[in-house]
Parts: sequence; structure tokens; C-alpha cells
Amino acid sequence: MRIDENRLEDANKKSIARHNEHFDFLAGIMTNDGHDINAILQKLQDFQVAIPSWALGAGGTRFGRFGFQGEPANLEQKIDDIGILHKLTQTAGAVSLHIPWDVPSDYDAIKDLAKSHDIVFDAVNSNTFQDQKNAKESYKYGSLSNTNSAVREQAIAHNVDVIKIGDRLGSKSLTVWLADGTNFPGQGNFQKALSHTEDSLKEIYKTLPNDWKLFIEYKPYEPNFYSTVIQDWGTSFMLANACGDKAYTLVDLGHHLPNTNIEQIVSTLMLKGKLGGFHFNDSKYGDDDLTVGSVKPYALFLIFNALVYGMENNPQNPYPAWMIDASHNVKDPLEDLIQSLEAIQEAYAKALLVDQKALTLAQQNHDVVKCQEILQDAYRTDVRPLLEKARLNRNGAINPIETYRTLKIRENLIKERGADSVASGL
Amino acid sequence: MRIDENRLEDANKKSIARHNEHFDFLAGIMTNDGHDINAILQKLQDFQVAIPSWALGAGGTRFGRFGFQGEPANLEQKIDDIGILHKLTQTAGAVSLHIPWDVPSDYDAIKDLAKSHDIVFDAVNSNTFQDQKNAKESYKYGSLSNTNSAVREQAIAHNVDVIKIGDRLGSKSLTVWLADGTNFPGQGNFQKALSHTEDSLKEIYKTLPNDWKLFIEYKPYEPNFYSTVIQDWGTSFMLANACGDKAYTLVDLGHHLPNTNIEQIVSTLMLKGKLGGFHFNDSKYGDDDLTVGSVKPYALFLIFNALVYGMENNPQNPYPAWMIDASHNVKDPLEDLIQSLEAIQEAYAKALLVDQKALTLAQQNHDVVKCQEILQDAYRTDVRPLLEKARLNRNGAINPIETYRTLKIRENLIKERGADSVASGL
Amino acid sequence: MRIDENRLEDANKKSIARHNEHFDFLAGIMTNDGHDINAILQKLQDFQVAIPSWALGAGGTRFGRFGFQGEPANLEQKIDDIGILHKLTQTAGAVSLHIPWDVPSDYDAIKDLAKSHDIVFDAVNSNTFQDQKNAKESYKYGSLSNTNSAVREQAIAHNVDVIKIGDRLGSKSLTVWLADGTNFPGQGNFQKALSHTEDSLKEIYKTLPNDWKLFIEYKPYEPNFYSTVIQDWGTSFMLANACGDKAYTLVDLGHHLPNTNIEQIVSTLMLKGKLGGFHFNDSKYGDDDLTVGSVKPYALFLIFNALVYGMENNPQNPYPAWMIDASHNVKDPLEDLIQSLEAIQEAYAKALLVDQKALTLAQQNHDVVKCQEILQDAYRTDVRPLLEKARLNRNGAINPIETYRTLKIRENLIKERGADSVASGL
Amino acid sequence: MRIDENRLEDANKKSIARHNEHFDFLAGIMTNDGHDINAILQKLQDFQVAIPSWALGAGGTRFGRFGFQGEPANLEQKIDDIGILHKLTQTAGAVSLHIPWDVPSDYDAIKDLAKSHDIVFDAVNSNTFQDQKNAKESYKYGSLSNTNSAVREQAIAHNVDVIKIGDRLGSKSLTVWLADGTNFPGQGNFQKALSHTEDSLKEIYKTLPNDWKLFIEYKPYEPNFYSTVIQDWGTSFMLANACGDKAYTLVDLGHHLPNTNIEQIVSTLMLKGKLGGFHFNDSKYGDDDLTVGSVKPYALFLIFNALVYGMENNPQNPYPAWMIDASHNVKDPLEDLIQSLEAIQEAYAKALLVDQKALTLAQQNHDVVKCQEILQDAYRTDVRPLLEKARLNRNGAINPIETYRTLKIRENLIKERGADSVASGL
Repeated sequence: MRIDENRLEDANKKSIARHNEHFDFLAGIMTNDGHDINAILQKLQDFQVAIPSWALGAGGTRFGRFGFQGEPANLEQKIDDIGILHKLTQTAGAVSLHIPWDVPSDYDAIKDLAKSHDIVFDAVNSNTFQDQKNAKESYKYGSLSNTNSAVREQAIAHNVDVIKIGDRLGSKSLTVWLADGTNFPGQGNFQKALSHTEDSLKEIYKTLPNDWKLFIEYKPYEPNFYSTVIQDWGTSFMLANACGDKAYTLVDLGHHLPNTNIEQIVSTLMLKGKLGGFHFNDSKYGDDDLTVGSVKPYALFLIFNALVYGMENNPQNPYPAWMIDASHNVKDPLEDLIQSLEAIQEAYAKALLVDQKALTLAQQNHDVVKCQEILQDAYRTDVRPLLEKARLNRNGAINPIETYRTLKIRENLIKERGADSVASGL
Repeated sequence: MRIDENRLEDANKKSIARHNEHFDFLAGIMTNDGHDINAILQKLQDFQVAIPSWALGAGGTRFGRFGFQGEPANLEQKIDDIGILHKLTQTAGAVSLHIPWDVPSDYDAIKDLAKSHDIVFDAVNSNTFQDQKNAKESYKYGSLSNTNSAVREQAIAHNVDVIKIGDRLGSKSLTVWLADGTNFPGQGNFQKALSHTEDSLKEIYKTLPNDWKLFIEYKPYEPNFYSTVIQDWGTSFMLANACGDKAYTLVDLGHHLPNTNIEQIVSTLMLKGKLGGFHFNDSKYGDDDLTVGSVKPYALFLIFNALVYGMENNPQNPYPAWMIDASHNVKDPLEDLIQSLEAIQEAYAKALLVDQKALTLAQQNHDVVKCQEILQDAYRTDVRPLLEKARLNRNGAINPIETYRTLKIRENLIKERGADSVASGL
Repeated sequence: MRIDENRLEDANKKSIARHNEHFDFLAGIMTNDGHDINAILQKLQDFQVAIPSWALGAGGTRFGRFGFQGEPANLEQKIDDIGILHKLTQTAGAVSLHIPWDVPSDYDAIKDLAKSHDIVFDAVNSNTFQDQKNAKESYKYGSLSNTNSAVREQAIAHNVDVIKIGDRLGSKSLTVWLADGTNFPGQGNFQKALSHTEDSLKEIYKTLPNDWKLFIEYKPYEPNFYSTVIQDWGTSFMLANACGDKAYTLVDLGHHLPNTNIEQIVSTLMLKGKLGGFHFNDSKYGDDDLTVGSVKPYALFLIFNALVYGMENNPQNPYPAWMIDASHNVKDPLEDLIQSLEAIQEAYAKALLVDQKALTLAQQNHDVVKCQEILQDAYRTDVRPLLEKARLNRNGAINPIETYRTLKIRENLIKERGADSVASGL
Repeated sequence: MRIDENRLEDANKKSIARHNEHFDFLAGIMTNDGHDINAILQKLQDFQVAIPSWALGAGGTRFGRFGFQGEPANLEQKIDDIGILHKLTQTAGAVSLHIPWDVPSDYDAIKDLAKSHDIVFDAVNSNTFQDQKNAKESYKYGSLSNTNSAVREQAIAHNVDVIKIGDRLGSKSLTVWLADGTNFPGQGNFQKALSHTEDSLKEIYKTLPNDWKLFIEYKPYEPNFYSTVIQDWGTSFMLANACGDKAYTLVDLGHHLPNTNIEQIVSTLMLKGKLGGFHFNDSKYGDDDLTVGSVKPYALFLIFNALVYGMENNPQNPYPAWMIDASHNVKDPLEDLIQSLEAIQEAYAKALLVDQKALTLAQQNHDVVKCQEILQDAYRTDVRPLLEKARLNRNGAINPIETYRTLKIRENLIKERGADSVASGL
């Protein structure tokens, strides 16, 4: 299913007058305040976030899962879903594959399909937190960190395979999220687990093509509830340094202990040139994987402020790979992703409005009140007209959610796929 | 499968000399310190903890599940498993059924089976956090709190059914764990959800037989990640008061925000005569459902200190219903439960050793150092010989885990049931 | 020191054109969307927040305090400071006295002074968390909960005195923040401490004038680090019910365990008619007492959404007493308070923009995406022009911080009071 | 004041029979289980923990301080207090000075005094979190990280001075706890603050004598409540690596976010040879600085298990510097320290009992139940007779707290020093 350009244009027509009025007003203020509005729009238009292939179906919890109708049943349908998202929002121009859930059968066909949607293949993700059918070794007690070398070798081989698959699709990076850890004190030896992990990652790193990057994710707990081998940015950073220049830390917003200052971690990593990837979501308690910006939008803005600072001031850091990593338990997954994309663009736009020069000056003068005023002035600005304009400039929807509903996209998907189709993966 | 009395006796014979030596030494000290050792033994022997019918199989997380061999495939086998536990530990003399996972088909047969294992039927548990096949209404957006009265009525009717089932088995209490809540700000109206819940609980309460109790569980989050209708003891207590004298709060150790002082909550509820039930487990991060006493044994001891105080000084509070509510992701579920039962008995025994008279005096004198010395004196005592003796006195195993392994119980279960049997439930 | 009306008008003149442009634009949109802009303005103008008498000086931590120049050295100067705040912001029309730090010497003079600033006397606060010089009994081991009746009586008598002092000033409520608790397991008996507290509060309640209210604050920890007698809303609510109709719970934003859903607590209390008072501040880790809205402005908005709902739909709940309770370690206290007042008004204004009718409908339809859209639509609106207009309508400053600096108020205070004056209190 | 040897012996005589009986029983079991009891005793006897010079007086919170009688009023009296502690416990053979609170006036006299108590000078601590009287620059907005180079230079110079003072006393290490950070988003630039800190530490490191070590402490929050420059072990580790081989990370138990797995951090640091120092205390909520082992004794044991493993298997890591860092708000500081020392020795003794060989085997076999049994077997052992024997072997007290009271030490201190003496420092 694809969105009809004409119907999209019709939908936009209804909103264009209001949009123009709002945009002109905001543009007037911004220009008056010394902002280069076109430069900001260009940045917003260039900002693209990858959608993971597992995010198109309804998620669940350990207590069960409530399905959603019209879920994509195969990789082709998943890419179609991302195509819909991208058509509407113009910010979802990439897919991040999860292997083995979404191994392509016909590589050329998949590449053509993605291209037809203007979608590129971003980082590929390996999976050693579940056992695959007929697997020789089990990951029940760990994979890259396992005391058993046969298990480690199987996990290394899987990651090498994932790189190969990604390479055929044009991906340039591998994301390793290692769920390995322990549920009980004494269950494992921390030093051996860490050493095994370092050695395993180095084995994988060796096979990395020259223009690839390795992203090492960290997480304090879950699915293991006493310890996780790569429990924080410090461990990931240490491992990335041990692997080499192409290895980086990946930050997932939900993978932190309560009250962690993530903004500061981002700043530190970019200063050291080691922030490789970034996963968006929101949460209140743990790794809740809620819609981006739905719970703590100001924290998201502050993190974007650090990201923008780093992108402008840290040439030592590569341009990060962005991805949404959320779970859609009670919302239509596509609507949920639209809301996430909107929240990301909003935070980015507001961060671009921060008067960095004035902020630096206020910081030097220890004018704490002024520092806060500068950040809040940007944050309090209603930037929605900017986002609308950025989408319009790329032929997207002024109001993506509204358009999604007006065009009855979910209804059409159900018609095409049936009510009971189930997305592969979790 | 049942444990052969003779083989159990043989296993005990190997440990009896060491046990006697240790017990005599400890008994000497305790008697010297003024303790009535037989009274303490009697209390330990009388302390029985219910095993829920869903706890006999391997648990999982939202990221997957690693199975365990020889799992009980039906209610009969589950009760057999509890029979094994009880035979070894002599502290698992009750089962807590989960409906609809474990509805008996032949009530008399199940009752006879349980009786043959010396097992009684404790609280029955309803389930409105999952949809049952062919259910008319869905609980995706709540059950007893749903804005839709048809859903509420279905959920009420289910609870009434559960009472009826329990009544036929000899249960005397219903536990309601209400997963209802929201994942996002604004998703629900807190006041309406609370009012609906209160009304629904009152409907259920009305149908409660005279000699029954209603236990209202609370939990701050999961499976909902923004809010839970019954989020804390205060809400549960308020609802229990609204229902009436037969309604009580149920405390689950894992259902609290980080750093909550659970000991104090227990004390408050018992003072007000409203602690009805208690679920044991342990955790480090959230509702991790780990083996009891595996992470924070001193906190467990302090809670038992409050429980013992309440049982001795609060006639206004009924004798609480005890249950283990843990999940067994990387351990043999039966071994895990034996470790939990041992930890519970240990904490109880140590709490019984606290010199309450001296503690009261030190508290009155604000002798904080002495207060700590008194608690730690009890806690530091190695009470394992006491637990062994209590089991021996009831013809259980001196060393349950060791005996479980010596008698090759899991191997026998696998032989009987096959490697691939899967427990019903989660 | 007082702000010169003419100089304030001059300052406003510089901003009036920009203000008018922004306001007209926003008013146009809002009117178009069906809002009654004058009704909203009236509500904002009527919303007044009390400033506590201890908030005008620099705060500190247990590691020390860095002073601020020109601090008010006595109650008269404190009221002058609030006068300045109120003149600029038009939302600080009340003072909340802390006894014994700020006992008036000449009641009539103080009342006249306050009146001249258009300031009323809101809730009075007692202090039993410090020992006063020459006090007969010490609160080291508790006050209203102490095992020693002499200490309890002293603490009760102090509260009764505070009521008398407040009564002479026109206050109508007493706030009791009880720091009582324990630092170590076993230090106290939870049940006795709670019973003593209930009895003590009832003694105080007895002396309450008929048109007064008693506000019972709760807090999970600090200054005691194992337990606090009134540790959560449930305990406060229980005690308020035990005292009677004039007793209420007081919510302080910083007094919660990590991740507590405060919005829900507010809703529950208002449904039950028991939310008496509300203390504003912000925090990231514990009771950090930071500027309101500086860390989690969306949470503040959501809480205001619950407050607005309650004020409109819960006639059973009295109009709450509002107060800022923050500490100013690295900012000019007056500038800090202006930022807090601005953040409060902003959250209130945005909450007033929520389309409650549409929200109710979306909640009934379980349209979770729409619910979020409705809240975010209100939150994303830039309401600053509304706040400016509300201030202007009451002859306040368009831009309070800017005006405070333009008028060189701190410099003048230092000139008047000297650099080394120190505010009484903490 | 010094403890009379004869009176100590008399006190021991009363307990010796009971001690012997308990010790013989435990020694029998342990020997039977294959332990070399004398080797364990020797390790316990060799384990010495430094007492900081600020820990001998009553601590406080930001809400006030309740004094204690007979506090040491100068450095000499503080060392006398540690002498008393060491005489009784035989495990407090070191003092850790805090500069400028405790600068010696007569170095030789102080060294002689310490020597007469068998006390050595461990790490010295600098203070840049408070302003000293007449200081030219203020640390209100940071010290080593300050944007103002004059402030950084003053802070560096202070640290260099502290090294010089320590050097004259025989200290061999400097502990830097950097309180620098921000209270509000935007207040500082994270990258500049980190870079300044790195540069400042390198300046200090340059002046370090060859046989000295630099310990870099970390802490997530307090006294700053939005961010701290050295917020976690990862940042400290990165800075230590940047400084050089003599720079190490220092772990303080209370300086972690909720639920952090400290045991794992210790293991990682020792594997990498970078654990330099360790501060003991306990806590429930934040950096509560409670008596060691009073809240989470099992966590302490697990950490000691990691420390023992590292000391035995990581020659790349130096022997760590141990110190107690607690605050004594409601206990006699000396009794509090005795309880802390006892808890430390207890955890160490239990960790020494862990059957490391069996544990390694069980870990390799993924026998999670067995792993837990092995740890709990050691933990459940009542090791008090071992601690008594270790003290007796060094002519200390069998029961230090009891002896402290029997000998009326506090009463004598009050007699000597008066009731109102106040310890310098916090």
C-alpha cells in the first residue's frame, strides 16, 4: 500500500492557510531575533531517523500482548509501512533490520522496494538474547560473555553473518545489544564475563568492513535482573576503545538507572568522539519504550541541545545513527511512530533555536538565571509551524496524524492484510 | 511422582550427626539466652506458605523465555510438584490457584490429590490482565476500571466465578491483582478509573461468602508504564475500607517504587487491622520476581520483624495469607522454590530471636546503638540448625536441595513427563 | 525598598509593542479554537502563590552555604522582598510565615506593611525539626511522635502557639511538616510512632479555630534516612481522616520516591476532598528544591491538568493553598522566585487550554493517540503572551526578570542592607 | 584519654569463657570444611581501616544538627579518639586527614601522638566544596572545573598544598572529591567542565611524589542537583587514565544512583588495575552516610566477595586504601564507628569463607542454584567468634561496644572536654 500523492495534497490543502499564517508569524519573530530560518529548515529536512523492522507491530509485556489489526506479516510489508511513515513525515528515511527476524529472501527486490520508498538501510541489529529454532547452543546463560567457548563462537558467527547481510543491503554499521548478565549474586564471574565479551567483540570487529562502524549498546538491567555485562556507558566506552577506532558507544534513552543525567553522557561521548548511535524512546520507570517525548519532553530537548552542540563543535565525533526503539502496546504502531518522529523533530528544532553564543557568555559569567532563561526561551517557542514547513518542503503532510486518519490508512492495511496478521519478532 | 519415605530417611541419615551437633550447640546458646526453643520450633513448623499454581514452570521476560524440562503440564502435575516441595521442606502446605489457567475439571479428584499431599487450597487469583480466547470484551484498556461498563461487568463476573471455583475447593479468600492503568499521560481519567474500580470491587465483595476475605493487591507500574489504578498501599487501603470488614490489603514485596520502606507499610497495615496477604519474592530494580532472600535478606528479616510484632501485638489483624510469587528464569523452578522457602523460614526464625523486651526499652531510651545491636544480634545468628530441626520434626528433609538432587527428582520428572512439557500460564 | 510605578511603566513601554503583536496573534488562534480568552486571563490573574518567609535568602546544603548579598535581615525586609516580587509578577500576593524564625514583634505594623504590598497571610508553618535555644526538650529523636510524652507536649504546645500567632495575622491554616522518623532499622517502633503522631495531631486539631484548616505534609526521607513517620500521601490521608473535616493532606512536589506519579495522587486526593495545600518546586534526584519548572516542566503541566480538573469538577475539595518551597543555592533568590512564579503560571495557563470535552471523549473511546495529541496541543502552545497580558492587566511587569535587572533592584537592596546581611532561618 | 590495659583485660575476662566456647565450635566446623583458620585470622588482623578526621563529631543535615557531648575540639583529641577506637577494635590503625579542617600545627608532635596510638596517616583529603575565610576566589560555581582560570589555579594550589602536608606526615595518597557540578540545565558546559577538570587534575598529578597515588572520587549528585562533573566510575576511570599510572578511581558506597550494581564496578576496576580507594558507609535513599552494614549487609558481603577475589587474583591492582565515610546524626560517633568497623570485618570474614573453587565450578556449569548456595553458606555462618579472636590476638576487646560502655569512655571524654566542645569540620 502506498499513499496517493493527490490525496495527500488534498489533505494538505485544508490546512495550508492556517499553516501559512502560523509560519509567517513565527518566521517573523525568528528572523527578528537573528535566526537564519532557512538554515534551520534545511537541518530539519535533512534529519532522518531509522525505523527498526520490529517496530511495526504491537509490542507486549511479560504479562501478555494485545494484538493490533493489519500488522505487517513480512519484511516487504514492514518496508511498506515505513514508506507510509516516511511519505507523511519525511523524517523516516531509513530502516534498521533485526536479524534473524527479518532476513531478506530476495536482496535485490528488497533493495528496490526500499529505494522506491526513498528508504536506506541503516545499522543492522544482531540477536543473541533468544534461542533460534534448531540452534546448536543456547543463550540462556549468555552469548558473547558465556563461559562456554562453543556458545561464544556461535554468537560471534551470528554477528559476522549479520554484517554480511547488512553489507549486501548497503548498511554501514552493526549494533550489538548484549543482553548477557546474571539474575542472581554469584551466578557469574564479572571479570571473566567482561573479558570474554571484550574478546568476542574484538573477533567481530576484525570482520568489520573498512567503512563500517560497530555500535556497542549498554543497559543496566532487563532481561537480567542482577547484573548486565555492559551495564553503563563507561563499560561500553571501555570496550569500544579496546576494539578500535571504528567502535562506538550507542546510547538508548531507556537504558539508564533512575535519574541518570543522559545529557551529560552524550556530551562526554561526543567530546571523546565515541557517540556512534542513538535510540529514541521515553519512559517513566525503566526501559518502558514509550512514545518519544510522551513523558519527559524537556529532557529530550536538553539532550538534543547537547547533540546539536556536539554536531557543531565536535568534528572528532561521527554523525550519529538515529533510531526509534519503542514498543506500541496500546496505540496503532504507525500513529505511535508518527508521534515519536514529531517529538524528535520538535526537540531538534527547539535545540536549534538556542542562542549558543549568549549561553556561552552567561555560563562564563555564572549567570545561572540567564542560562535558564536562554534555554527556556527556545523551549517555550511553539515550533510546530517550522516542522510543518519542513515537511511541506519535502512534499510530506502538514499534519501527519490527521492525514493518516483522513486517508484511512489503517483501515486500508486491514483490508489488504486482514485483521489477524502478526508482525514477526517480539 | 512422589518421594519415597525410605529414600528420604536414608538421605537424612547421612546428615543427622552433623545436624545434631549444630543443633545442640545452638540450642545451648539460645536456652542460655532465655529463649524457649520448643516454642520457636513449633512456630516454624506451623508456618506454611502457599505455592501458586503458575510457579512450577519456567518464567520469562518480554524478550523471551528459556524453557525447563519436565514442567508440569496440568493441574494434577502442578499439585504433585507442590507435594514434592512440601514433602522436602514441610513448609509448602498450600496451593494458590490462578484462574482461568488452572480450573479443575474434576473437583473431588483434585481435592483428594491435594489432601494426599497434605496441601490445602489458599487464596484463589483472578486474571483480568490478559484476554481469554473467545472472550467477548477485551481488557486491553482495563477491566474493573474500564470506561466501558460491558468490560467491567465481564471482569466482575469473572471474579465472581473465581470465588465460586475457590469455594468448591475450600479456599477462603480471593486475591485481586488489578493490572489496570495507563501507558501515557492523558490516556485515562484517574478519578473515573478509581471510582469505577471502587464500584466494581464492591460488586465482587457483595458476592463474597461470609467466611471469605478479599485481598486487594497494589503495584506502582508494569504492565502499564505511566500509571496503575491501585498504585500503592494507600489506594488499596482506601478501597478495602470502602468495601468493608472482609476486604484487606495484600502486600507483594516487589510491588514498590525504589527505596520504599516496606517494613513500615506492613506495620501500619497491621496496626489498622488491614494486612490480609503477603507475597514473597526479591528484586533489585523493579518487580524482578527473584528468589526470596537472594538479594536483600536483611530487608526480609526486618519485614519479618514487623510481621512477628504484628502477629503478637495486633489481634485486630487476621493471620495473613502467605504466598511465594517469583519467576524462575534460569533455575529449576522446584529448586528455586526450595531456596525461597528456606529464606522465608530463616528470616522468620531470626525475627523470632529478637529480644522484643530489650528492644522496646532501648527504643524508649533512644539508645539507637543498642537497638541496632539487638536486631543484628538476632540476624547474625546462624539459625540453619533450627530450620533443619523443624523439618525433621515433621519428617521432612534436613537438606532439601541436596536431597532433591540426591533423589534425582528432576530427572524422574523428565522421564515421566518428557523434556518438552510446558506449564500452563505465563 | 519599593518599586517605583513610573519606572515600572517605563520598562513596560519598551516591550509593549512586541507584547501586543504576540498577544493578538495568540488571542486570534485561541478564540478561533473556541477558547474564552478573557475567562482564562481572569483565572491567571486570580491565581496567587504564597512565598514562605524563609525563601528570601540563599539556601544551602549539608556541605555548606554560599551567601548572597542584600538578603533580608528581618521579617519586615522579607515582606518588602515579597512586595517586590508581587509588584513585578502580580502572582505573589501572600506570605507563609515560619515560626519561630519569623515571629512578628509588632503585629499591627506587620499587617499594615503586608497590606501596603497587597499581601495576605497564608498558612503558618511550625518547626519541630530543630531545637530552639533554651528549649526544655530536644527534638533529636522526634517531636509529635516521640516516645517521651514531655517532648510530645512541647511540640503540641508549639503548634498551638503557631496557630495563635497566625490567627492574629489573619492566617486560616496551619501546615505541619513532621520530620520525625528514624535513621536506622529498629531505632523506633513504627506503630507507636504513628499512634503518638495521630494523638498529637488530634490535640492540635482540637485547638484549631472553626474557619481554619490543618495541612498534614508527607515526605519519604530526609532529614531521617531510614524511615519517616508520615512517609506518603496514604499515611497523611489516614491521619487527616482521623483528625476530622478540617484536616487535609498537603502535597510537596519534592517529597516523593523516584518516579512517583504525583498527578494521580493529586487526582485521588481531590476526588476524596482532601487536597488542602500544595508546595511547588522541582527536582531531579530527591527533595532538591530547585526552581519550579526548571527540570520537569511537562510533569508540572500534567499535575496542573489534574488540579484544574479537580477545581472544576470536585466541589468536595476546598480551594488549595499554593506555596513555593524552593531553595536558592546559586541564584539570586528573588530572580529564582520570579522564574518559579512564571513556570507556575505557564503550567496553569497551558492546563486551562486543554480541551477537556474532547479529552473525555477520546478517553472513553480509548483513542490513546488522540488523548496525547490533545494534551500536547495545549502544552506546545507558547502561552507567554497570555502571562504578560495577565500581569499587565494588574499593572505588573511584562518581563519581570528583565525589569528586575533594569531597575537594578538587587543593587539597591545591597545598598540599603549591606552585602553581609543574612536571612534568618536555614 | 587512653584506655587502661588492665581495665580492658578485666572486661575481656568476663567474656572469655563464652568466646572460647563459640570460637572452638566454629573453628571445628571450619577446619572440618577445609578452611585454614589461622590464615583467615591473620587476614582479619591485618585489615585496617582509616578513620577520617571529620568523623569524630556529630554530623548533621541541611535541616540542622543535633550536637553530641565530649566531641574532640582539635586534631590531637581526634587522634586520641581514633586511638580509643583502635585500642578496642584493633582495626582502626589509620587516620585520613581533611585539609584545611585539620592542618597540624606541630607535625612532629602529631606524628608522635599517632605513633603512640599505633596509627598511621592514610590518604589526605582536599576541600574545594566550601569557601575558606579570606579566600580570594569562591568555589560557589566550581573549583577544578571552573570557567574562571583564577579559581582553578587556587583549587590546584590547594591540592598541591594538601600533598605537601600529607608528605610531611607520611601519607602516600591524595583523595580528590570534586563537588563541582550544576544545579540547573544549561548552567554549565559539560565538555568545558570536563576538559578543565582533566587539565586541573593533570596539574595536580604532576606534583605528586613518585610513591604517591591520586584517588579520584565520583558521585552522581549532591551538593549539586542537576549534574556533577565526575558523576560516575566511567568518568573517574577516564580521568585516571588521562592522568597516568599513579591515578586511580575511588569508590564510595553511597555515591551511586539507586540500584547500581557496585559489586560489578569494583570487579571491573580491579580487573583494569584502577581501584585505588574505597569508602565505607550505608544508605537507603541517597548518600545517607549511615553506619556501615546497617541497611544492606548482604550487598556489603557481595562487594567484599568481589574485593577478596580481586585482591587474590588481580596483581595489576594495588592494595586499596580503606576508609569509613559516615555521618553520625543520632549516635555517639565512637559507638557508630565501632559498629561500622565490626560490620566491615564481618563482611570480610564471610567473604573469606566463600569456597571460591566450588563457586568457579558452579559458574562454569551454569548451576545457578549451587552458586547461590555457596555464597549463602558463607554469608549465613555466624562469624562473630572469628572477629573476637582476631581482636583478642591483637590485645583488643572481645566486645568493643560493651567494653566502651563498661569503661564509661564517653563519660570520661565529657569530663575531660566538657559537654559543649564541638568538632571542627562539617
